[in-house]
Amino acid sequence: MTATTTPPSGNGNGSRPGGRSAKVRAAVHRAVQEVVAEGSPDVLTIPVVAARAGVHATTVYRRWRSVGELLADVATSRFTGDIVVPDTGSLRGDLERYAFDLAKDLGDPDTLALVRATIGTGGEQGAAACRGEREQGLEAILGRERARGEQPPTLEHTADAVLAPLYYRAVFTDLPLTAEWTRTLVSRLLSPGPVQQQAS
Amino acid sequence: MTATTTPPSGNGNGSRPGGRSAKVRAAVHRAVQEVVAEGSPDVLTIPVVAARAGVHATTVYRRWRSVGELLADVATSRFTGDIVVPDTGSLRGDLERYAFDLAKDLGDPDTLALVRATIGTGGEQGAAACRGEREQGLEAILGRERARGEQPPTLEHTADAVLAPLYYRAVFTDLPLTAEWTRTLVSRLLSPGPVQQQAS
Repeated sequence: MTATTTPPSGNGNGSRPGGRSAKVRAAVHRAVQEVVAEGSPDVLTIPVVAARAGVHATTVYRRWRSVGELLADVATSRFTGDIVVPDTGSLRGDLERYAFDLAKDLGDPDTLALVRATIGTGGEQGAAACRGEREQGLEAILGRERARGEQPPTLEHTADAVLAPLYYRAVFTDLPLTAEWTRTLVSRLLSPGPVQQQAS
Repeated sequence: MTATTTPPSGNGNGSRPGGRSAKVRAAVHRAVQEVVAEGSPDVLTIPVVAARAGVHATTVYRRWRSVGELLADVATSRFTGDIVVPDTGSLRGDLERYAFDLAKDLGDPDTLALVRATIGTGGEQGAAACRGEREQGLEAILGRERARGEQPPTLEHTADAVLAPLYYRAVFTDLPLTAEWTRTLVSRLLSPGPVQQQAS
């Protein structure tokens, strides 16, 4: 339960590691997440965020320039590096764990609100931030399967079959992301029979 | 190439059909679509929309209350009733046509900008508006297949396999929605072998 690790001091360029700059960033990010979680993306403006974070609006404008850039930055922090799927020993096990974890994450109302707000104003940069490293996570799982000497589906196919329904259902519908449904997504991907071989 | 049909005049409740109210709504909707298409959802506020539409901001506030409600209304108009898939005679043909048409629609930059902006501030109402009648369109296609005496996939499975990847790819990635890829989505849904029957 220690605070964020502080890098060694005295980096010689005059900035203070773990100092004011990092504190401002943390306060602004927290303010954005609070306003978004309160369910009013309409009122998410830089003056509102600055007031909530206790900093001058000009400080926020200088660093992020627009609400869209700010949201993309918050989403990047939030969605990068947070998914590591342990090696369960099988492709099915890995994908089921991956889908279950992603469903849990996207099923969190605050996370979903951040994704929606970022999509709304963050443009391509925001969209990329919301994907985060999800596809790299899938690629790591598929790479492990290849290392086992197997031939897994392509990344494109896996993203279409597992990643896309999770995001679509979370963002565009009010259907629940149940554990049973996430297993069904994986099962549909891995269990179809070899139709092409029936003609041979 | 006629203008919008004007309903019979004299409805007896004091409003003027095809009159000021309808003109205001059309002007406001057009203003929203223009501002969104210009790529600056950040500046989409009710005063900006009202000025662009040439009406008082109070008129807009009275009718829509928030940018989120306004976007949801515009998206509802835009995405309702615009997809009718002609009966091609087969489930595969119908689904390929459906996926191709949806890819073309979501591939339009102005449409995509409206979807993203609406997701950003429209809440559940906005999300529902962006789905529009897409699922009803799928259900109609599946119903036709059942009427042919066949057993098509469920609506849930079809939405996961065809609808979700189209929305995910359009909204969250910069990958193109190619015609070949839309056919692949349909093919993956319809071509897997009857795995469950192999055990019998």
